[in-house]
Amino acid sequence: MAKIDHLGIAVKSIAQARHFYETLGFPVLEEAEGEEGVHSAMIPMGDSRLRLLEPLNPGTDLGKFLEQHGEGLHHVALHVDDISGAFEEMKQAGIRLLSEEIEIGAGGRLHFLVDPSAANGVLLEICQDPIAAV
Amino acid sequence: MAKIDHLGIAVKSIAQARHFYETLGFPVLEEAEGEEGVHSAMIPMGDSRLRLLEPLNPGTDLGKFLEQHGEGLHHVALHVDDISGAFEEMKQAGIRLLSEEIEIGAGGRLHFLVDPSAANGVLLEICQDPIAAV
Repeated sequence: MAKIDHLGIAVKSIAQARHFYETLGFPVLEEAEGEEGVHSAMIPMGDSRLRLLEPLNPGTDLGKFLEQHGEGLHHVALHVDDISGAFEEMKQAGIRLLSEEIEIGAGGRLHFLVDPSAANGVLLEICQDPIAAV
Repeated sequence: MAKIDHLGIAVKSIAQARHFYETLGFPVLEEAEGEEGVHSAMIPMGDSRLRLLEPLNPGTDLGKFLEQHGEGLHHVALHVDDISGAFEEMKQAGIRLLSEEIEIGAGGRLHFLVDPSAANGVLLEICQDPIAAV
């Protein structure tokens, strides 16, 4: 079933940002493996989670986003059960994508990005958990 | 349990925006009762939902947001079980709030807003479902 996998929040410093959520009683869990060039921490929320994203250097996409927009909401990741189907469906519907193909991320997670101009200004990531080895 | 109640997305036109989600197979449900000055539609996503928000006129807060930022992610609403406790906890911790008190919205829903400057640039709404009459 489709769900919000996570909501990415760009922050300058996870060490500082975590304080706000911890004050409210939410656990903030450091993530060892994340996207390249990004230090991340996640805050479980029901069947979804917030992810705090701190760029490891200012030259990354996330670093540039922070410089231009400041801290704030960065992207939404939607989890789907059939990422190949979703990818093909979007291509056929002529929806502009930022990814040329489905990419394999940390831990074997599959994902691709939709162009914000096609999704009402939202940077939308479509993802699926790794397919379990049989 | 805390969860993401919804993710608010500012759009110019729900009639146009819904097409993208419907193409992907997501149902887009018009909401009859919403915030004042806002036309909204929601897209269920697991235990959360996306909400498309279209201002009824350009003078509203949402209308001004659209003019300044264009379409995109607008706010995150976190659902908590004890909104009074959360409100007091934040006041005591010195967290800046935009709401002076807990407000009662459409359908008896309780909510208040946190100042984005206190929450890493995120406009954060804290909400709780109406308390069922006994």
